[in-house]
Amino acid sequence: MVLSEAEERAEALLRAGKTENTVASLMQPAVGIFAPTTTVAEATEVLRQQVRAAFITYLYVVDCANHLLGLVVMREMLLATPETTLEEIMIKDPFALQRDMSLGDALKAALRKHFPVYPIVDADYRLVGLVRGAELFANRAIELSAQAGEMVGVEKEERLFTPLLTSLKLRHPWLQVNLLTAFVAAAVVGMFEDTLSRLVILAVFLPVMAGQTGNTGCQALAVALRGMTLGEVNADSARHLVRKEGTLGFANGLLVGVTAGAGMFAYALMQGEADPVWFGIVVLISMVLACTVSGIAGALIPLTLKRLGADPATASSIFLTTMSDVASMGVFLGLATLLL
Amino acid sequence: MVLSEAEERAEALLRAGKTENTVASLMQPAVGIFAPTTTVAEATEVLRQQVRAAFITYLYVVDCANHLLGLVVMREMLLATPETTLEEIMIKDPFALQRDMSLGDALKAALRKHFPVYPIVDADYRLVGLVRGAELFANRAIELSAQAGEMVGVEKEERLFTPLLTSLKLRHPWLQVNLLTAFVAAAVVGMFEDTLSRLVILAVFLPVMAGQTGNTGCQALAVALRGMTLGEVNADSARHLVRKEGTLGFANGLLVGVTAGAGMFAYALMQGEADPVWFGIVVLISMVLACTVSGIAGALIPLTLKRLGADPATASSIFLTTMSDVASMGVFLGLATLLL
Repeated sequence: MVLSEAEERAEALLRAGKTENTVASLMQPAVGIFAPTTTVAEATEVLRQQVRAAFITYLYVVDCANHLLGLVVMREMLLATPETTLEEIMIKDPFALQRDMSLGDALKAALRKHFPVYPIVDADYRLVGLVRGAELFANRAIELSAQAGEMVGVEKEERLFTPLLTSLKLRHPWLQVNLLTAFVAAAVVGMFEDTLSRLVILAVFLPVMAGQTGNTGCQALAVALRGMTLGEVNADSARHLVRKEGTLGFANGLLVGVTAGAGMFAYALMQGEADPVWFGIVVLISMVLACTVSGIAGALIPLTLKRLGADPATASSIFLTTMSDVASMGVFLGLATLLL
Repeated sequence: MVLSEAEERAEALLRAGKTENTVASLMQPAVGIFAPTTTVAEATEVLRQQVRAAFITYLYVVDCANHLLGLVVMREMLLATPETTLEEIMIKDPFALQRDMSLGDALKAALRKHFPVYPIVDADYRLVGLVRGAELFANRAIELSAQAGEMVGVEKEERLFTPLLTSLKLRHPWLQVNLLTAFVAAAVVGMFEDTLSRLVILAVFLPVMAGQTGNTGCQALAVALRGMTLGEVNADSARHLVRKEGTLGFANGLLVGVTAGAGMFAYALMQGEADPVWFGIVVLISMVLACTVSGIAGALIPLTLKRLGADPATASSIFLTTMSDVASMGVFLGLATLLL
């Protein structure tokens, strides 16, 4: 029961859209606090009273200024002689969460622990409260499972049984914003209307160019967001990521460009165009250039947004789509205008 | 240390790409097993020996045929008199995981529990082993955080520091498959080359139509996948989901279609087309139709793939992109051919 209530509370917090979700927001009062010189027999007697009112999993050992010295598990108390002091059987300097830690950081810190309860301390390592693991992890599961949706404008709060109108209100603004960015891409295509009216065949390949470039960028974006979620991104690994995704974009663009270029060559040949080989070459070159740009953008955009303090998941894909649309169709039609 | 090793083992399993990831794959031998009539004093003496070799968190009470009767927490032993029997203080019929449960189902079952250790039982509720919560949840965090990537062909195993060539090998096949589906969309556009050469202005709006329809479908897909991950999808809620996403697709298509249609009207007017209003109407109608189709497809495709036993995350977006590209550009150019 306690755990289920805890989870509800955690979900309520998320629903409320609390922006400053720190560990303190999930904090419960600390119970089971003892002095280091307390004996097992004394502590057991106190516990016998306390368990009637509170759910106690561990004992916390603090000094007179409330600094957290150690943690005692019940197993050690059970196996110790009655006159043993808690000091002798406690785990010294136990794992604790900082009160002002963001929930995200706390989740990362606790990921490898999976304890039922975590002590919360202030900057001076004074015990200020407890947080149940179930609360932290209920949050985590909900947050992690939200990421795929956030990339396309679905909010964290939305679930299967969210009412239709709420879903519409939550999702629709993102679609309208995205439409404005699509107009940017359309404007780029519009700049080449003369080329298109001369070579209608190019219009057929516009969705191919935009689609493949977008996919390459989305792969880079997904890996970057995942690294951020699992806490693997720092200054060094960020540089590594951008370089790697640029190189991958180049390689994927080259290999996909060969297939797509062959397709374009075949189609241009069928349509009786004068230089079918050049049509294929234009597809190949623009695929390489555009995929390199979108690979770099897929890694760089979420990193930049995070540095600026924005939520990288939701906004990244909008910027990424715009960049990869403009790059792919702009380069493709630009090259075609020059070379065909 | 134990927990950290456990996590490594869980990650190794994932890396090995074990397809039949059942609870049994993470199982450790059961320790701390006692008969119901054992007294606290007797159990404590046995524990004193066992804890030297094993990490014991709970005591498990079984009958002579090894059926799991109950679970004893150390706190209750500590507070009980020495002659109390385990039967008297055990939690009866404790939460346990089935041996042949998939890891995904086990994670869902354990989500609201967050116990440090879970007993594993066979179909007859006989205790066959234990699994540490940290192992289950290490898996969970990694699996959940992978979903956004899987939708664009990034495998679960890929992380920030996966070598470049491995990343290329893992991601590239998905891009080539997607290219083939893009050719299908291109073929649809190709069918309307006459219309396009007559009205080049339509080519400018192709990426707008494809992009918005794709986004609407992706939102539906993200919500459907999320519901599956959090275990909220059954026959009833699946029907609800498909109907809801169809209606949302219609509503979003209508609202986005008004903006996009206005954009098209303005552009057609600027270009001096004869019937600029009709250009806007074609955009509006095709946006409504295509977004309704892609909303339904976004919910229906992952549900169908799951029923067929395929991984819904990876394959869904390929089918969805194809369907929404064909629907959006096909309907748009088809209507334009008829009405303009």
